[in-house]
Amino acid sequence: MRPPIKHCSQCGGETRLGVPPSDDRERFICVRCGQVHYQNPRNVVGCLVEQEGRVLLCKRAIQPRVGTWTLPAGFQELGEGAMHGAVRETYEETGARVEIAAPYVHFDIPHIGQSYVFYRARLLEQVASPGPETLEARFFRFEDVPWQELSFDVVRISLDLYIRDMQADSLHAHYGTIVRDDDRPGIRLGSCSLQDHLVLTAIPAHPSSHR
Amino acid sequence: MRPPIKHCSQCGGETRLGVPPSDDRERFICVRCGQVHYQNPRNVVGCLVEQEGRVLLCKRAIQPRVGTWTLPAGFQELGEGAMHGAVRETYEETGARVEIAAPYVHFDIPHIGQSYVFYRARLLEQVASPGPETLEARFFRFEDVPWQELSFDVVRISLDLYIRDMQADSLHAHYGTIVRDDDRPGIRLGSCSLQDHLVLTAIPAHPSSHR
Repeated sequence: MRPPIKHCSQCGGETRLGVPPSDDRERFICVRCGQVHYQNPRNVVGCLVEQEGRVLLCKRAIQPRVGTWTLPAGFQELGEGAMHGAVRETYEETGARVEIAAPYVHFDIPHIGQSYVFYRARLLEQVASPGPETLEARFFRFEDVPWQELSFDVVRISLDLYIRDMQADSLHAHYGTIVRDDDRPGIRLGSCSLQDHLVLTAIPAHPSSHR
Repeated sequence: MRPPIKHCSQCGGETRLGVPPSDDRERFICVRCGQVHYQNPRNVVGCLVEQEGRVLLCKRAIQPRVGTWTLPAGFQELGEGAMHGAVRETYEETGARVEIAAPYVHFDIPHIGQSYVFYRARLLEQVASPGPETLEARFFRFEDVPWQELSFDVVRISLDLYIRDMQADSLHAHYGTIVRDDDRPGIRLGSCSLQDHLVLTAIPAHPSSHR
């Protein structure tokens, strides 16, 4: 899920896997200076931009999955908030200036070490061309969403929830964990304990794109 | 906010700060193998455990701020979801088994590179003694919360919101960014764009504990 830390970022010494004192899981520890190197999930933040029953998608110009359509999103940077990151990524990838309306989904994907937060957002201004990570950005009517050409399962799941919510006139936030279940190929959405907001959906298998 | 990456985690070579091709900000880049090393915010996840108008706090046995009271919380680990991490940390730090009821706050703190997510949670079972990171764990009535002995501003802000919401019978989620404002000592809570949920609170200065 994440490459091993072979060398210490502080002294360059080699590391070994071991459980530090008063810890309960293995970490990469420098054999020279003793520094413990923690690895944590990364947040991917982005926007579902609404405009007159249409949603903004962008076509990826970069790996992975060049040429597929996705929601504007990217890694939250050090020094910025999640909402700020979502607004920044939307601008960079689509040229759209937006403001956040409300949180919409928070999906953890433990097997790739990422947590996705998508916000519903309003278009303020379409000011510029998309940046170098995007081939094309445009709004899609719900019936025209290119379901077979979406980049990642988390995008498909989020868009599907959004369109269902809109059609049911019942927009509300969703929380869950996208887990890989080796006994049941494909992806399922599960939440162990958020009883009030439990979302459990069988998802068709897309084993090459569980992201 | 985060120590510099002096050596490459892959080859041990020295790094320099530079802007990689088709990037727009400085990263640590290995001068030997060219590996780009990204740094991203870390998530701290925890619980506001409710029981009969009381809230569960724990007294820190570890640095920073040994002996002060805090909400059970800790870093989300690689391989777990945010809710799972919040439940795990609550168990480790207080001995309480809980289930998540609803998301409550999501506060980014860019100047320390951390994002806090606290969930409201229900006590299922008080099964064990708190772990080694905690001196004592117990429920406090709202009027008995030790405001002067809380560990971090984000804990004080979250508890204050929670108690106000409970007293107003208006529990709802809060989103914001805790920023350091050099022109105005202290901490303020601001959210650039989440118009519907804007929380803006002047906070007394605690310059040594803005976390």
